[in-house]
Formats: sequence, structure tokens, C-alpha cells
Amino acid sequence: MNSVKALNLKNIKSGDNSLLGKRVHTVLNNTLSYQWEALNDQVPDAPKSGSVNNFRIAAGETTGEHYGPVFQDSDLAKWTEAVSYSLALQNNDELKIHLDEAINLVVKAQKEDGYLNTYFTIKEPSGRWTNIRDKHELYCAGHMIEAAVANYEVTGNKALLNVACRLADHIYSMFGPEPTKRHGYPGHEEIELALVKLYHSTNERKYLDLAHYFIRERGKAPYYFKIEAMARGEAKLDELWDPSKLEYFQAHVPVTEQEAIGHAVRAMYLYSGMADVAMETGDEALMQACRRLWDDVVKRKMYITGGIGSTSFGEAFTFAYDLPNDTAYTETCASIGLIFWAQRMFKMEQDAKYIDIMERALYNTVFAAMSLDGRKYFYVNPLEVWPKACHKREDHRHVKTERQKWYDCACCPPNIARLLTSIGKYAYALDEDKNTLFVNLYMDGQIEFNLNDKGITLKQDTVYPWDGNTSFTVASNTTVAFSLALRIPDWCKKWSIKINGQEIQEYETNKGYAMITRTWGKNDKVELTLDMAVMMMRANPEVRADAGKVAIQRGPIVYCAEEADNGPNIANIELLPEPNFAVMYDEELLGGVCYITAKARRAKVDNYDGLYKETDNDYEETVVKLVPYYAWNNRGEGEMMVWLRQA
Amino acid sequence: MNSVKALNLKNIKSGDNSLLGKRVHTVLNNTLSYQWEALNDQVPDAPKSGSVNNFRIAAGETTGEHYGPVFQDSDLAKWTEAVSYSLALQNNDELKIHLDEAINLVVKAQKEDGYLNTYFTIKEPSGRWTNIRDKHELYCAGHMIEAAVANYEVTGNKALLNVACRLADHIYSMFGPEPTKRHGYPGHEEIELALVKLYHSTNERKYLDLAHYFIRERGKAPYYFKIEAMARGEAKLDELWDPSKLEYFQAHVPVTEQEAIGHAVRAMYLYSGMADVAMETGDEALMQACRRLWDDVVKRKMYITGGIGSTSFGEAFTFAYDLPNDTAYTETCASIGLIFWAQRMFKMEQDAKYIDIMERALYNTVFAAMSLDGRKYFYVNPLEVWPKACHKREDHRHVKTERQKWYDCACCPPNIARLLTSIGKYAYALDEDKNTLFVNLYMDGQIEFNLNDKGITLKQDTVYPWDGNTSFTVASNTTVAFSLALRIPDWCKKWSIKINGQEIQEYETNKGYAMITRTWGKNDKVELTLDMAVMMMRANPEVRADAGKVAIQRGPIVYCAEEADNGPNIANIELLPEPNFAVMYDEELLGGVCYITAKARRAKVDNYDGLYKETDNDYEETVVKLVPYYAWNNRGEGEMMVWLRQA
Repeated sequence: MNSVKALNLKNIKSGDNSLLGKRVHTVLNNTLSYQWEALNDQVPDAPKSGSVNNFRIAAGETTGEHYGPVFQDSDLAKWTEAVSYSLALQNNDELKIHLDEAINLVVKAQKEDGYLNTYFTIKEPSGRWTNIRDKHELYCAGHMIEAAVANYEVTGNKALLNVACRLADHIYSMFGPEPTKRHGYPGHEEIELALVKLYHSTNERKYLDLAHYFIRERGKAPYYFKIEAMARGEAKLDELWDPSKLEYFQAHVPVTEQEAIGHAVRAMYLYSGMADVAMETGDEALMQACRRLWDDVVKRKMYITGGIGSTSFGEAFTFAYDLPNDTAYTETCASIGLIFWAQRMFKMEQDAKYIDIMERALYNTVFAAMSLDGRKYFYVNPLEVWPKACHKREDHRHVKTERQKWYDCACCPPNIARLLTSIGKYAYALDEDKNTLFVNLYMDGQIEFNLNDKGITLKQDTVYPWDGNTSFTVASNTTVAFSLALRIPDWCKKWSIKINGQEIQEYETNKGYAMITRTWGKNDKVELTLDMAVMMMRANPEVRADAGKVAIQRGPIVYCAEEADNGPNIANIELLPEPNFAVMYDEELLGGVCYITAKARRAKVDNYDGLYKETDNDYEETVVKLVPYYAWNNRGEGEMMVWLRQA
Repeated sequence: MNSVKALNLKNIKSGDNSLLGKRVHTVLNNTLSYQWEALNDQVPDAPKSGSVNNFRIAAGETTGEHYGPVFQDSDLAKWTEAVSYSLALQNNDELKIHLDEAINLVVKAQKEDGYLNTYFTIKEPSGRWTNIRDKHELYCAGHMIEAAVANYEVTGNKALLNVACRLADHIYSMFGPEPTKRHGYPGHEEIELALVKLYHSTNERKYLDLAHYFIRERGKAPYYFKIEAMARGEAKLDELWDPSKLEYFQAHVPVTEQEAIGHAVRAMYLYSGMADVAMETGDEALMQACRRLWDDVVKRKMYITGGIGSTSFGEAFTFAYDLPNDTAYTETCASIGLIFWAQRMFKMEQDAKYIDIMERALYNTVFAAMSLDGRKYFYVNPLEVWPKACHKREDHRHVKTERQKWYDCACCPPNIARLLTSIGKYAYALDEDKNTLFVNLYMDGQIEFNLNDKGITLKQDTVYPWDGNTSFTVASNTTVAFSLALRIPDWCKKWSIKINGQEIQEYETNKGYAMITRTWGKNDKVELTLDMAVMMMRANPEVRADAGKVAIQRGPIVYCAEEADNGPNIANIELLPEPNFAVMYDEELLGGVCYITAKARRAKVDNYDGLYKETDNDYEETVVKLVPYYAWNNRGEGEMMVWLRQA
């Protein structure tokens, strides 16, 4: 059993001076109510969801056909989870009414035996559990369990938790090692990590055992997906299958023998569940697999934005160093899954390197996936966009040039909402055994926690990441000895720490944390200053797409050039060898950002009448303006590039 | 009526010292007999053709099912055309026997009313002319007509020409402006240019009229393809169609209003037919359209290799400057079509700029499409290959990393054969009115022609393009006044001309030709020296795929870096600012080529543990070896790149 825990969300308050706090407040104030409208098919000109209506039908409150993909239930589940979290941060009577309505529908839609899935209930009642490879029953169950655990944690209400337990009990009766049960595992992983959460909420060991079983059974021959397909009479089709087809599901070999492969979101949810189960059970082989898979993802298969999954075909990983910028898939949910996994790996190892990746994925891909107003979303997050190519090239068809109001497959929008409303669980962690509070993500606000049986209130002030100054002040009256572990991000080469105005040198730095151990009392103040220089980042020369290019990063923020600032054909811009970066904060720009200017040049186009010639190009010098990648495309359709050439 | 004519192939002999001559001899000695085997399904491990067997079935000599795509007849037709040409260059008793066999089958397969198409005859006799949009009947007819004209020109035998006339008469009875006829045009253009050839062979004006009709009717509303689909009962499907769907066929607007769009091979065959018809009829609007379309292709939509059609989706043009190197489609047949069109544009304007493009497409894409031994072929001709990506990325799936023995859709291999066996028609042209012989492509050999009612024999000696020296010697006894128009290629900045050992200055240079006008007598000798420096070519800065890169060209040959010479990860190579190019001829290398070495550097990979960091790269200097692009992949699978970065 691991002693590192997240705080209860009820003990975390978020301000909105920091970027992270601002984004959380956008979700609280705009996104959650908007998404309720979307799930109720009330957003004009948006793709229909059907998610709430499917539950209405399954609950017997109306009649009609199931609408949308088989996994449509998960959208309402994720929204329910997000709203539950939100109530810990900010009361909202209207959302509470919607939440009650949603929970009531779910309760009514559950069958007597605990089964819960509107697709099968409405459309194919006899088809339950006949195709767990493709039909997402266990995936939807996982999301409902997560929603229930969240709702119970924040509200103390057990209605949804009871639904989750009855559903999990039903699944436990169907799957497991016993000869009478099915020896299967989900086509889309998710329930594994959810069962561990349910175990934490209920202390029912069987939920953990089932999660462990799903993970350890996965990928063993004879393949359950094949057995299941043959039982459906699809033997002939199935004969065509080979292990490479199973890679999509991470089901071709046991998880301990895998590299990062297949559908990226599934992979992230699986690895998160693996880490959870490994920590709870002490399964060392699973822990080793997690560490190995982590390195495979972050050292070979991840974009600088924390995006993962470089092909639209199967929404999948391809192979090491294959990271094209313009046809990237980099699904929002995959980066969210990477954040889930990073949180667990941190818990396993208390190493800030996992949080460095979490922060990269959060501040770049996840933030980019939602418009500044919180009401439009990207599913795919490319690092380079030429709108013409997206409109006219079939191989760019998956790249949307503008955020969308909703999607036919709308997994991403409510996933952003549930991540950001629960971000406090990622920002802080408590190790009670070691008397340590970890500060992982910097955001203004206030937290309450107990160490040495004493309650502490700690206030954080920061405008992170626009400057590198963050302060912590003890607001409670208690006097407590504990360690404050401040993450020193991997991008930071120089930092200083003051206590009550005096710079200190005597502290240990361990696995990326400055460990400040002392007896803390009221009004004690720590000031952390992180040097936040503009960095020219290069990619490993094995990454062909980035050869000869640099990406500009400051703090955790990756920058990009947009047509809105630099005119068309930004691919023709190259930074000068000495770009003389200048950083300016503009509160009017893109919700308030630091932008960066750099000296650059462009080849003159009017030098050409046609396509090719022997020439030294003529150049004109220019100044390129760079804005945070996450804020791109908030000023209409246009070109965008992260990786820039340098002369 | 245009006064510029190609020579009869019987009056052209080719040596094999020049690269072009060598490639022609490879086709004569290896390719034609190999392709007969392929068409007869006798090549082990190659995709089945069925083309000859389909004719056997249609001819009643055997029974069975039609095999392959609806256009499979065209493969045998193109082979028949190629072998017919070949007999003018080199006798081959075995090929003659096969040719007679092929012609006999075609004669027998023709129906009494002149109809000829094995697919419909065998498989769908009632479906004739019900779907000229998709079923390629007019396309196959066009190829059979071209074969017949070629066979008649070389052999004087009328058997196949009669088949062609009866077929064309049948088509004439079905299509045309008269109210009783169908107001259609082919889904895949080809018959237009074939009908003009048949008109030249027979002097039957109606063939020209029908070609003119097909071209001028094309793209008019109401759309014939829609009318036809409704007649087939596909109205519902057809309602979904909009003009953008018709762009694939170049059938969305009249040809005079089009930009270069849609399926690239269809476009080239159409434009070739347009130029033919325009010249014969004096249709000035068509001529203008040809000139405009030419500029659109060569100034905005063509690779430096003369490849065209930058997307696999629809094998099509996309939009201006969209020229990705690794996902290029650049079908072999499209570049062959570009050569056909260039020949006609030259005829129309007597401007060498068209031949410059012809030479670029011939020496790079078309030569690259056939292995050095003439027995393996590329359909797709990328400018950059990373084999892993081709094997593992769905969006690279069309890019084969090695030439193939045959294809399920095998349009390209026999197209290369018929082009190269008839290349003399492209190398020379005669303007009898202006008493001028044009030399367009340099290849060693000998030609006979008449000017001023006198016969002249002219010998050409050259190892072009390995050096820039070419000489012409009058080998006949006659004394004749005429102009020798020697093409000065666009890549040549400096040249000199000697007559009988004396350098001359007094000659006109007009539209890319050095016009040497004099009275020629026996043993008169002209020596042309073209300066052949190594050039660093750059692309128009609108071409994003080539931004910051150079392509190395010497003479007409575009060079590439291959893994075979430079090890893996060639994308990590960048030329130094002063590459100090050295050119060496190696008769052992790739059938005898000039290779080029250049100073370059590579970023050190061992500097990285992971993906991204703030760093100035460490480099190691290296020498990169470049080989002609056309010769790539003759040493096994490996990486290849044409456009290289420069430090």
C-alpha cells in the first residue's frame, strides 16, 4: 500500500490569477452548463449527442431509439463526474438540479441484476456481454463507476455509488478466473482504474481483484476476443485475425511484454490501471512494465506538446520517432490519459519527472483542446496546420482547422471538464507517512490538510506561468513540523527560495523536489522563484519531422506562430541565428498571455515565376510573433506552426 | 494544320551509349518479353493479369471468367503498341510471334458491330455503354486504336487498323451531337488523342470530329454522368453528387474553364487530346486552355522530378504548391501523360520550354519507375521514403518501398514500354514548311529524313547526360539547306557550338533552340557542348514541403541520397553552406552513372536521452553521396530523399 494520497477536493480552493485557475473557472462558469445543453441536444448546429435521451428511454421516461455510438453513456458519466467535482469548488444550484436529474435517470436505467448500458437495454437486450471487444460495455461501466466515486466523495450521497456497486457486482459475477465465468477483458480499457477507485471508496477487495484479473488476463493466448468472435459466429472473419490486429487493443501479448502500441487512449487508461493495481497489490512485474512503457512513450512517442498517438488510423501509436506535425492525431483524451497515468507514476515513485510530463500535456494539448470561452473543443491537436491541406487532402481530413461545438464521438469535451474540475487532486499530494506535502502544479488558491494530526491551511499566490514567482503562506494557527516539497520543473535551470524574506540554501533537492523541512507556523511564507527563460528546444535527430527545426518554450508553455499575427505562409519563416527573444504580457491578448517576439526572415516569393530554380534565395527580415500553443485558433481559421526553421 | 511532325520510327536508330538509348535497349531486350509473360500470368509470385486470357475467352478460344479490373484490355493494347514500335528499332522473331497472336485474339474478340471489350463481352453483354463514367469502355477503345495506328505505321499491316476503324465507327454511331446519339464523353479520357491518331492514319474526318465533340461536350450541364446514372436507376446515389465530385473526371465545367484538377492521368490524356484537336481544328479557345493548364501544372503542381498528382486519394491533383515528398502519389502514367502533352504543346508552339518539362519527367519519374533490368516497376514515385513509415502508417500505404513485378492495376509498366520504344518520336521533329529539324532529346543513334525533297542521314554521338558533349554528323551524300534546331535545355547556362571544328557565334537562339541554318553536306559535323554544372535547386517558397531545402540537379538528372550510400536516418543529414560538389562517373554503379559527393554534417544522436531539450546540437561532419533519383532502390529497400536540408 502506497502512502501518497491526493487531497479531498473539498479541501482545495482555486483562485483565477494563475492560468490553471483561470481555466478551471472557465469550466466551472461556462463549460459544465454548456455541456449539459449539448448532452441534451439543445446546442444549435452542433452534432446531436443523444446521451441524456438514451438514459431517458432506458429509464422508461420516454420512448425512442438509442442514438449514437455504443459508448454514448460515457459522455453523461463523465459530465456527472465533472459536475460532482465542481460542487466542491463552487456551488451552483442550476448544475445541482441537472446533476440530480442525471443521477435519477441512471438509477432508473439500471436493470434489476445490476446491468447498466442504454445501448444494449434499448437496442440489443439479448446481446449483452457478447462483444466486449467492440461494444464498450465495460468502458461505459468504468466511467459510471468513476462518476459515482466522485459524486460520493464530494456530496456524500450514496445513490450513484450504490448503482456503481451493483453494476460492479454484476460484472464480477460475469468475469473472472473461475471456470464458470468469462475469461475476458475490455476492448477499451477504463474499468480497471475505475474498479480501483471503487475499491478505495468501499474497501471491497473483490473490485481490486477484478481489476487485477482484467489486466493480467489481457493478451494471453488463446485470445478471448477470438473466442468471443467465434461464439458470435464470426469465426471466418476471425481466422483473418493475427496478433498484429490485436495490437490496436493492447491485447496481442501480456501487458508485461508490451511496448506502447495501438489505440493511444486505451493504452493510457490501461497503463493507469496497471499502475493503480501494481501499487495496491505490490505486483512488481506490473510496476516494471509501467516504468518501461513510460520511457517508451515519453522518450520515443510523444510530441513536445504532450500529445500522443501520431496516426489517425486507429487513433494510435505508430513507431519510435514517427511524429509528423501536420497529420498528428494526438487526441485530447490521450493526453488526458497520459496525465492520469503520470499522476499514478508519481504516486508510485514520488518523482517529479512524471509531473513534468503531466504539466506539458496539461498546459499544451489539454488547454489547447478547449476554446478560451470553454464552449468549443478539439479532438485532434496538430502541431502544424495549413487549412487548405486540411480541407483538400484526404490524409489531413481528421485535422479540424477550428474547434467544434460538439462531436459525433464526443469523448473529449467532458473528459477535459472532469480533469480540470478535479485538477486539485493533481496539483497537490500528501505523504502522511513521510509528513510531506507535494506541490506539483502551481495555481493560486488555498488548501487544507492534516499532518501529524494537525490541520494546516496553506495559501498559494501566483500568476504562473506568466512569471516564475509563487508564494506559500501558512494561514492556519497551528504549529506543525512537515516537509513542503516544491516541484522544480525540468525546464527550470535556476531557482531560488526565500523563507520569510530570507533566501535559503539548506534544503535537499530530491527527484525534482526542493524539500523544505521545518516547523511551520502562522504567516510563515515561502517564496519560490523559478527562472523562466525563453528556450529553443530541439528534437532528437531521430525525429524526422523536426529535423533542422526549433520549438520555442517558456516555462511549461510551448509557443506557436499563427497566421493571425504573421500573415500567410508561415512555413516560409525562419528564425535568425540570434532571434533576440522578447517576452511581453498582454492582458488583452487571448485572455491574457505572454507573447514572444523573435527576429526572423522570409524568402521572397516574388523572386519566382514557377516552381524550381537554381538560386540563393533573397530574404526579407521580419519579426515573428509567437503565442502560446494552447491559445491558437481563438481568432478564426488560419495557419499555425510549433516547429520553426532556423537560418 | 500544323506543319511540325515526328519522324517515322522506321527512320530512327538508337545506340546505347546515351542513357536514353540504354533505357530503350533495356525495354527492347528485357521488358517486352517479360511483360508478355506477365500478361499471360506466367511470372511467379506476381499479381495475375488475365489480360491475354480475357481476350482468349472473348475470342472463343477458351472459356472462363473475365479477370481483373474493367480496363484490363488496355494492358494488352499498350503492350501491342510497344512491340509494334519496337520492331522498327530491332527485329525480334519471338516478339513478332507473340504480337501476331495478340492481334489475332483481338480480331476474333471484336463483335460483328465493331464492339470490342472483353469485360462486357464476357461478363455483362447487356451493360455496354451504360456506364461510360466508370467502366472504361472508351478508354480501352482508345488504347486499342493507338495500338492499331502504331502497328500499321511500323508494319503496314492493316488487320489491327481495320479493327480500330470498325470500333471507332461503332463508337461514332453511338456518340455525338445528333439527337439520336448519346451526348456523352469518357469517364477516363484517352480516346480523344487516339481518334486524332486514327484520323492521321486514315484521313477520316469523322474521327477528328468525334474527338472534338468529346472534348467540347465534357463538363456541360446537364451532366451526362448524372443522366447516365439516373438511367441505371442510381438516381438516389446520384443526388448526393455535386460538381466537386465531377472534378475527379475533369467533368464539372467545360474544359476551357478548368484548372488542373482531379485524377492526374485522366487530366494529362485529356489535355493531350485537347492540344491535338486544337491544332487540327484551329480551335483557339482550346489552345488557350492548353496554355493556361500547362502553366497551372508546371508552375504550381509539379514535383522537381516531373511527377504530378500529389495525393493518393483519387490519384489526383490537390491545390497549388501542395507537394509533399513522402506521401506523393506521382503516378508513373501521369508523368508519361505529361510527356505526351508536352510533345503536343511543343508541336503547337515550337518552344523548348515544353521539352524541358518532358525531359524532366522522362529522366526522373519515368526512368525511376522501371528497375535497371526493366522487369520491376513503381506505380507511385515518392521523393522521400522512410520504409518504416510506408509499412506502418496508413497514410503512406500507397508508397511501395520496392519496385513490384506487376500490379493488380498494371497500367504503368506497359505505358513505360510504349513510351520508350517510341521515344524517337519525341527526340526529333521536322518542320517541313520551315525546313527545320528539331533535336529535342539527346541520344546516340542515326536518323533519316527528307527536307527540300532530299533525304538526309544524320548521326548523333553522345553519352548524354553524363557529359554535355553531343555531335551530329551528316552521313548522307546529299547537299541540302536546312536549319538544325538544337535544344538548349533550361538547366544549361553556358554552351558552345562548333561546326567542323570551328566555334561559331552567328546563329539565332529562339524559344530555347540554337538554330543552325546552312547548306549541309557529307561529313559536316556539329559539336554541341552544354555546360553541366551541379546545381542547388530551390523550390518556390510557397512549397512548404521544400522550405529550407535544396535538391541537387546536374543536367536533367535530379539526385537523391540513399541509405545504401549514407546509412540510416538520412533526414539527419544537412549539406554544408559550401558543399564542394564533386562529380564522378562510375561504370560499375547502378548501370553506370555519375554520382555526386558533397560536404555535409549530421546532428549527433547520442547527445539525447529522450526527445526534446534546450540545446545547440553537436554535429559531426560527413560526406554525403548522391545518386541519380531514377536509379534509386536498385540495391534493396532503404531510405531515400531528394530534398535535403542545408546548414
